Amino acid sequence: MRHLAAVIFLCVAAITCWAQSAELNVLPLPASASRSNSEFLVPPRVEIALNGAKDARLNRAADRFVTALAKKTAIPFAMKPGKAKGGTITVHIDRASNAFPELGEDESYKLAVTPAEIRIDAPTTLGAMHGLQTLLQLVHAGPNGIAAPAVTVEDRPRFPWRGLMIDACRHWMPVEIIKRELDAMEQVKMNVLHWHLSENQGFRVESKVFPKLQELGSDGFYYTQADIRDIVNYANDRGIRVVPEFDTPGHATAWFVGYPELGSGPGPYQIEREFGIFDPAMDPTKESTYKFLDKFVGEIGALFPDAYWHIGGDEVNGKEWNANPKIKEFMAAHNLKDNDALQAYFNKRLEEILRKHKKKMVGWDEIFTPDLPKTIVVQSWRGPKSLAETARQGYDSLLSHGYYLDMLYPAAQFYGVDPFDGEAAALSADERKHVLGGEACMWAELITPETIDSRVWPNAAAVAERLWSPPESKDLGSMYRRLTAVSQQLGLLGTTHESSYLPMLERLAGPNAAALKILADVVEPTKEYSRVSQEGKYNAFTPLNRLPDAARPESFTALAFGKMVDNIIAGTAQPVERNTARLLLTAWRDNHVRLAPTLNQNALLKEDVPISENLSAVGVIGLEALDMLEGRGTAVESWRAQQTALLSQFAKPNAELLLKVVAPVEKLVAAAGAK
Amino acid sequence: MRHLAAVIFLCVAAITCWAQSAELNVLPLPASASRSNSEFLVPPRVEIALNGAKDARLNRAADRFVTALAKKTAIPFAMKPGKAKGGTITVHIDRASNAFPELGEDESYKLAVTPAEIRIDAPTTLGAMHGLQTLLQLVHAGPNGIAAPAVTVEDRPRFPWRGLMIDACRHWMPVEIIKRELDAMEQVKMNVLHWHLSENQGFRVESKVFPKLQELGSDGFYYTQADIRDIVNYANDRGIRVVPEFDTPGHATAWFVGYPELGSGPGPYQIEREFGIFDPAMDPTKESTYKFLDKFVGEIGALFPDAYWHIGGDEVNGKEWNANPKIKEFMAAHNLKDNDALQAYFNKRLEEILRKHKKKMVGWDEIFTPDLPKTIVVQSWRGPKSLAETARQGYDSLLSHGYYLDMLYPAAQFYGVDPFDGEAAALSADERKHVLGGEACMWAELITPETIDSRVWPNAAAVAERLWSPPESKDLGSMYRRLTAVSQQLGLLGTTHESSYLPMLERLAGPNAAALKILADVVEPTKEYSRVSQEGKYNAFTPLNRLPDAARPESFTALAFGKMVDNIIAGTAQPVERNTARLLLTAWRDNHVRLAPTLNQNALLKEDVPISENLSAVGVIGLEALDMLEGRGTAVESWRAQQTALLSQFAKPNAELLLKVVAPVEKLVAAAGAK
Repeated sequence: MRHLAAVIFLCVAAITCWAQSAELNVLPLPASASRSNSEFLVPPRVEIALNGAKDARLNRAADRFVTALAKKTAIPFAMKPGKAKGGTITVHIDRASNAFPELGEDESYKLAVTPAEIRIDAPTTLGAMHGLQTLLQLVHAGPNGIAAPAVTVEDRPRFPWRGLMIDACRHWMPVEIIKRELDAMEQVKMNVLHWHLSENQGFRVESKVFPKLQELGSDGFYYTQADIRDIVNYANDRGIRVVPEFDTPGHATAWFVGYPELGSGPGPYQIEREFGIFDPAMDPTKESTYKFLDKFVGEIGALFPDAYWHIGGDEVNGKEWNANPKIKEFMAAHNLKDNDALQAYFNKRLEEILRKHKKKMVGWDEIFTPDLPKTIVVQSWRGPKSLAETARQGYDSLLSHGYYLDMLYPAAQFYGVDPFDGEAAALSADERKHVLGGEACMWAELITPETIDSRVWPNAAAVAERLWSPPESKDLGSMYRRLTAVSQQLGLLGTTHESSYLPMLERLAGPNAAALKILADVVEPTKEYSRVSQEGKYNAFTPLNRLPDAARPESFTALAFGKMVDNIIAGTAQPVERNTARLLLTAWRDNHVRLAPTLNQNALLKEDVPISENLSAVGVIGLEALDMLEGRGTAVESWRAQQTALLSQFAKPNAELLLKVVAPVEKLVAAAGAK
Repeated sequence: MRHLAAVIFLCVAAITCWAQSAELNVLPLPASASRSNSEFLVPPRVEIALNGAKDARLNRAADRFVTALAKKTAIPFAMKPGKAKGGTITVHIDRASNAFPELGEDESYKLAVTPAEIRIDAPTTLGAMHGLQTLLQLVHAGPNGIAAPAVTVEDRPRFPWRGLMIDACRHWMPVEIIKRELDAMEQVKMNVLHWHLSENQGFRVESKVFPKLQELGSDGFYYTQADIRDIVNYANDRGIRVVPEFDTPGHATAWFVGYPELGSGPGPYQIEREFGIFDPAMDPTKESTYKFLDKFVGEIGALFPDAYWHIGGDEVNGKEWNANPKIKEFMAAHNLKDNDALQAYFNKRLEEILRKHKKKMVGWDEIFTPDLPKTIVVQSWRGPKSLAETARQGYDSLLSHGYYLDMLYPAAQFYGVDPFDGEAAALSADERKHVLGGEACMWAELITPETIDSRVWPNAAAVAERLWSPPESKDLGSMYRRLTAVSQQLGLLGTTHESSYLPMLERLAGPNAAALKILADVVEPTKEYSRVSQEGKYNAFTPLNRLPDAARPESFTALAFGKMVDNIIAGTAQPVERNTARLLLTAWRDNHVRLAPTLNQNALLKEDVPISENLSAVGVIGLEALDMLEGRGTAVESWRAQQTALLSQFAKPNAELLLKVVAPVEKLVAAAGAK
């Protein structure tokens, strides 16, 4: 992680200007690339020549490219400076991509940048659009001006299905948020929006055939059919497929508010306000259920040109089925030995309906039963074992286990998950073809339009690289360096993962936000389901306006500090690193004095008094250890033992936050003690 | 400035939670207010009851209020949590305001916040909308939760004309930017958008009668008539008048590109790409000019319901008139002794046209000649003398001298300018009535949609307070404290004056943006016309992407550091202030080592090497002085003289930047030397 960059006020251990790096500053890394020492200087006027086959999407992509390049460089390309002839970008495609992107279409491209010109050649529109995104990432300010390095890139994706799942149900995500995510996905070459549109907590699509779905099941927060078409076209322009998910037979309470006859319980039903797994489930035994679904898929399926339709299928607890005598009778009569068998029956019936409407079925792990046709796709949220099993039996599959963004893991952890990990490593070449790729998943219990970006980006980009780039791309230093660059570009072009941070801290701490930021920079919200699983703490009405909502999933400050500490202990630290480590520890030590009055007078922040105290204590201990390591004083065993005990207390979760600089200071103490 | 807040990482000298302050956290300060110790806790559900007269604008304002409150608190008001009855806000108006806001309408309101309820009473819609904005500002997180303090406010503006002038010509400002500024203006109770729509560099409005105006004069960047109506309605909803400016007879090159016959020179004309004062001027001697203007005002005037029309009238250099024999003949024939007389003749003719179309004339200083009717308004950009003279002669006037935001003065300087300063102080009460108010002006030579907000906000808010609040509101500490709060609210609700900062630094410095920020936080762009007046440096094509574009007009870090230094020298500094000052000086001292590699390898940043070196030198000197003040070492005269000489070098402009922490360190050195 030598080139790791961080967003704190001072921290970069070894500064190396990326424009000089031999590695391309691109994420996801291309399949192959070679660069020379020259560069293409971005001129005041950019002209894009589109050659080969015609596709209006490519014209729009070229316009978008120029707009994005103008934002990335602040060069006013829209102004036409007299007759000054600019350098030329030539884009050639052999043929237009399909009317809407389809699974497995050719997405390859070649990009050649020379000092005189730029050429993108691709078999299809999709490839050319990827080439433009690679080019956009390459442009940076360098010694001679704003330039792209001279390169030859030949690129194609490792997997054809590189998705982002967005849950628009547990918290509503308006159209502009979805578009923002699509803009970002395009930049990292993700090509599937998996749109989770119905849930216990809300039904988010307008049905004209069954209007009570949205009228009674959405609190008024739903996408109109015009919105859907708008989003689908917007995604299409960016080479992104849109796969809708309507979760059945469970996770379906919101359907039943307007149409209780679909449920297996006595009703009436209300929109669920809590989070978790709930009892309501569709009644798989009534023919009327299938008639409803047939009409529904007919109506809504027409809005989504994609061949795939996600049925959900997860987490049916079976309680409503068990409690319903008619369902028990039906199961006995049809020789369905348990609820799994009943759900398999339901899936089979639903699959027939989908097939009638020319849709292929996708579902979570639980749908997988070998009597379903081989056209289905199983999305693994349970782990590599289920993925491997599915593929071995000749079914297509997707990995999402390990890619749950709402778990708030660091980017390195998401990056480290490969579809061919674990049992999938043993798959044969033919079996491997059934692994279509994967999806990063953003479940929405604890996010709002304000915070979604800080949970999705840049982490989803790490998943995007895993699914696009050659599997040998594993270097974490390289990944973090490029992740920083792409994260900056995403922010410049519109995502709010960075820009929402300070306003949230200001909302909490007002004029003292700067001191709160010192603390916020070195904490992370607790991981996995630790927050949402607290009984009675979070539901759909809970404001998400506290420090764990503002804090980012990964503390880059802590990461950078950890690297400084490693170098200090190894004796390889440069003076600037030592100074910076000391400055950070001093700032932490002194911070609680500044912050305490604000915390104590603020109902939303009072819970953070202990962790703020702990940070200051960590600063004191770290400075002591640093002094000892630098030869001022000697550690006695009792000191080491005492500090270690304290630090192990500080490492524990506190008000849903983890203090991420404890571990490096533990290392400092150990090193000082060992001296 | 005891409560001064700043946005650096650590800086607040004396932390006092604003929720506890006796002063209301509102800008502009109300005419009168009293508060008690109780508060209204914001409930999970907010209901606004609108009583009295009906006005659909008020309904929309109430909806907007709830949306803004949800953003300000992150409470999901749009969700309806069961039957939980929320507290109630009652808004009562006696009558609807006029269909569009008019000069001098009653804007007063009363606001009463008690623990149980909130009441706003106003004679008109305009007043009620102001009351809602005051309420919005009052809401903050406090010891008991998110709350508004219990208050009784009686409020009305000091001046009826509180404007912001936006130049959309020298750089194009799209519709969404104008709307963003209107949103912000509403929050600080500004009520006039003065929209500068034609210039040498562009004609920005669609004319259907004279389509070559925009077709040839705008580079394609103009507001359609639908856009204009949209903006006018948007402004109306926010209680804001829209006064268009079509600058004549000078500043008018863009008109002549399509209609050269309007000009006084031989033509042809081209859109001007440079900045400055140019020769082209309308031909005041041709009847066809007035026929054109008559049709133009007839067409475009209908788009703007406001009674006022700004004719510009400034900076005619007369060269085209002097060079045109026909014009000389005309002047002789009509006994017009000089160009001023010719312009006065033009203004008189134009005023008659405006009157015919029911428009009152506004113009810059230069239009003022005593033969114009008393309905005109003179906008003073030259100073208090012209303002006073105009008022004394019974003409209405507006102050803009001292309110030019593009001068990049600190907020305190804008705040210190009063319409009744200087010669205007001697005006009688009756004469004073002719001073309608003033306008903050944002000329657009060196701004883009990306940077406009960082030049307008929060400085325009200081002008807004001066024009709204009682004249005795002068306390700078109070102003800066409330400016910080309103600045945070503006950012949370959509302005980009803070959020654009880091992305611009990242665009420049990539992974090393954090080190660049250390420097950027303590510099300001040079003031007044120092940047744009450099020969050949800036024109309409110049990218505005360098450090002087990213740096803010006022360094709050330097301001806070200056306060720490004052306290240290006075012996009143608390330990946390001393520590913070030392930490800042240390960070500055060490920063050039971190930053230099980036600066040296970047064509846009290379010019900043000297100022970065200077900052580090300032850090060294400041630490030495601090040591001496704390009794470690003694200053000798040669040291003091040497450092003072160095610092006076560092205080000079460097690459269009000023290093704002030099002055406080000069104080430290002087104090150390005097010890």
